[in-house]
Amino acid sequence: MAGLGRVKALLFDVFGTVVDWRGALLAEGEALARAKGVSVDWPRFIAAWESARRPAMDRVNAGEIPWTNVSEIYRRRLDEVLPGFGLESMDEPEREHFNRVWCRPNPWPDTLPALARLGRKFVLATLTNNDFAWAVAMAKHARLPWDCILTAELFRRYKPAPETYRGALALLAVRPEEAMMVASHNYDLRAAQAQGLRTAFFPRKEHGEGQTRDQAPEGAWDIVTGDLSELADRLGA
Amino acid sequence: MAGLGRVKALLFDVFGTVVDWRGALLAEGEALARAKGVSVDWPRFIAAWESARRPAMDRVNAGEIPWTNVSEIYRRRLDEVLPGFGLESMDEPEREHFNRVWCRPNPWPDTLPALARLGRKFVLATLTNNDFAWAVAMAKHARLPWDCILTAELFRRYKPAPETYRGALALLAVRPEEAMMVASHNYDLRAAQAQGLRTAFFPRKEHGEGQTRDQAPEGAWDIVTGDLSELADRLGA
Repeated sequence: MAGLGRVKALLFDVFGTVVDWRGALLAEGEALARAKGVSVDWPRFIAAWESARRPAMDRVNAGEIPWTNVSEIYRRRLDEVLPGFGLESMDEPEREHFNRVWCRPNPWPDTLPALARLGRKFVLATLTNNDFAWAVAMAKHARLPWDCILTAELFRRYKPAPETYRGALALLAVRPEEAMMVASHNYDLRAAQAQGLRTAFFPRKEHGEGQTRDQAPEGAWDIVTGDLSELADRLGA
Repeated sequence: MAGLGRVKALLFDVFGTVVDWRGALLAEGEALARAKGVSVDWPRFIAAWESARRPAMDRVNAGEIPWTNVSEIYRRRLDEVLPGFGLESMDEPEREHFNRVWCRPNPWPDTLPALARLGRKFVLATLTNNDFAWAVAMAKHARLPWDCILTAELFRRYKPAPETYRGALALLAVRPEEAMMVASHNYDLRAAQAQGLRTAFFPRKEHGEGQTRDQAPEGAWDIVTGDLSELADRLGA
């Protein structure tokens, strides 16, 4: 915990770390299937849909394709996935609405009380690979009390590209040791630490109860806790 | 008011429109003068300090100087102005602290209740020439409930450059007619309207009771009211 007294700003990963995106997809997916009178294996659907995101972001970072927002990556993949699950009859407005399910997750149970406490002591910023507009819409939906929204879209590079962490530090006018990346994903903290940021980890079950990945720290993170509430305790908030 | 039903996002000018920056300068200036045992003509000091901002921003927009944040413009000018008012003995930390008085204004009396109402119906974004970090600090100080912070710094151009309005629309993923610029400055609304945004004006006395500039609309703005509270009424918030 040495040197953590200088931390002024917390940078939050959002999907998984702060909100339960999969729960929203399952709930809205089941409602959609009922309305359409079809039976869908939603865990398989979600895996197929979500699996397109990382490869597309990596291609952006590698310069193989131009900047593409996550909303567009998901929308293209949705059109590919729907027919395999008997949902090809969905029209354009239905697809647009369902694609935005990524803006409608609920926070984890400990999220809002912990953010309220942390916000009295620190600047709370997102640093997410989400679209800027989607991050705003999600914050509105889930009442996330961010002081500001920072997303990969501002820097035209996706995490874990160094430009995202360095860009966030520049906009917040803080030195690396004055910022702490908060994430339930080791890859994100590894990249943040490489840029000199402080790091905080706690595990989530964002992929469901069977999740084994990212259930333990894989680096020398500055703080490791059980959840966000315990992080607020540890930071004296 | 035709077509205003499509507005989803309100873009707010901040200095003058939302907060009383001059009141903070007067109050902190008087306290500083007392502490230093000097007598300062604060209206004249403020005029001398503030007058450097617009010309420097215009030089940035004209490409004559590289991007320079408002915090830096003010800090340089502060160093120039202090000796003429008997304050040259201020040391570096004192100057840094006083320069940040621009982050510590109070909202106008109608601001917070009106923003709370408007936030239930619209996305509330800043679109300010302020530093990003200063806009965040000010929001924290004045408890301004922005959904997101957008500043000229993101676009490396100052208002009224078209890139600032277009950049804000792109990040919010809204069409021009889905956004309304809210400002107590006609020049800002003129530039926003030229990019297709809706416009709302109300006068403020940000320069003091004797202010004559920007006390009336100088264009065909979509809504003209007496203050921000009345704007909330007009927008049905």
